[in-house]
Amino acid sequence: MHHEHHLKSSDTIRDIVIGMSDGLTVPFALAAGLSGAITSSNIVVTAGIAEIVAGSIAMGLGGFLAGKTESDHYASELKREYDEVERVPEEEKFEVKEVFAGFGLSKQLQNEIAEEMAKDKDKWVDFMMRYELGLEKPEANRASQSAITIGLSYIIGGIIPLSPYFFIKDSQQALYYSCAITSVCLFVFGYFKSKVTGQPAFTGALKVLIIGALAAAAAFGMAKLINGGKL
Amino acid sequence: MHHEHHLKSSDTIRDIVIGMSDGLTVPFALAAGLSGAITSSNIVVTAGIAEIVAGSIAMGLGGFLAGKTESDHYASELKREYDEVERVPEEEKFEVKEVFAGFGLSKQLQNEIAEEMAKDKDKWVDFMMRYELGLEKPEANRASQSAITIGLSYIIGGIIPLSPYFFIKDSQQALYYSCAITSVCLFVFGYFKSKVTGQPAFTGALKVLIIGALAAAAAFGMAKLINGGKL
Repeated sequence: MHHEHHLKSSDTIRDIVIGMSDGLTVPFALAAGLSGAITSSNIVVTAGIAEIVAGSIAMGLGGFLAGKTESDHYASELKREYDEVERVPEEEKFEVKEVFAGFGLSKQLQNEIAEEMAKDKDKWVDFMMRYELGLEKPEANRASQSAITIGLSYIIGGIIPLSPYFFIKDSQQALYYSCAITSVCLFVFGYFKSKVTGQPAFTGALKVLIIGALAAAAAFGMAKLINGGKL
Repeated sequence: MHHEHHLKSSDTIRDIVIGMSDGLTVPFALAAGLSGAITSSNIVVTAGIAEIVAGSIAMGLGGFLAGKTESDHYASELKREYDEVERVPEEEKFEVKEVFAGFGLSKQLQNEIAEEMAKDKDKWVDFMMRYELGLEKPEANRASQSAITIGLSYIIGGIIPLSPYFFIKDSQQALYYSCAITSVCLFVFGYFKSKVTGQPAFTGALKVLIIGALAAAAAFGMAKLINGGKL
């Protein structure tokens, strides 16, 4: 069966990618930026930790609410479709026909399909949900799982670029190590991310690395511009 | 037509929501966190700007690459489907039948549908793309538009909570104003976001406000914990 080669990544892996992608990049770039203006690693660590806490909560809870919204939305649309096939079946049949008219099927065939589909209400509603509205049934507990996965991935991703600042008092010095460690991690992460989403792995790894480097360089330059080592 | 009431937000609005949602929350929480440990607004501003630069690049470029990946993926799958209806038409017809078997249609009707659909290759491929693979044709230029919209929204969102620190030297003092302004903005933003995505507006606004408050409180507490005003 050829479709198993199509893009397919589980929701959990997608969540890890979402969380870690930003987690590696933003705290790294923030720390790099601060190192451009502040010589004390202490402040960089404080800002970095504050960012990781803020970012993981914002992204994790954001993921939770997005998942919750999705499943609430699905439930309310499902109720509405069941109600409609009961209340206005002819209109709903017309909508089934419309779907197939769009694919150039004959009027006669459209009618046959609509009539036959109407025999099984569950399958009829399932068809409307998926093909008229484009909604897939969300997994149960998806929302809270998603929140935890994204949040944790952000924390893990964020701790990596920050770790040199824990041990090296001078932020400029720590920055070198942070760049080295984070570059390797961004590349490796980009590689696996691309593998998992079915993209060319080496190009994908480079892209992720370049985003991180650009973000860090821009933050560094900007911090230097406003503060020029005055802090 | 009832389906116009269904959840429908344009891609641009979705991008604004994505960017502004994190832009309002993370720089706000970072600044609040730093105010818990550092009394100089200067440092808070430097860190805040570095974060906004880093975050907008990470999210904007992230949006760009996500859009690019999506359209590359669509193009390569489209090519594959055209190739397959040419090379192994019977297999592809079988896949059409499978889709309808899943909705409980009779074997005979499945055959008729598959045969009739096979008459127009473009529509056949379109059907496979949408209903077998669940892929929608991405808009042209979607990727770069998306990047700019998300990045700008993040910047605009981030400047708001940071603005009091520009004018008030004492970070603790600035924090009060930042909390006041940002709470209002989070609530208003949450309200419109919910309106646009068809959710209950007041509850939605509260949720967004609570995420922001939680993230800021946690960042504040954590920064205080590591540094207890020692900087």
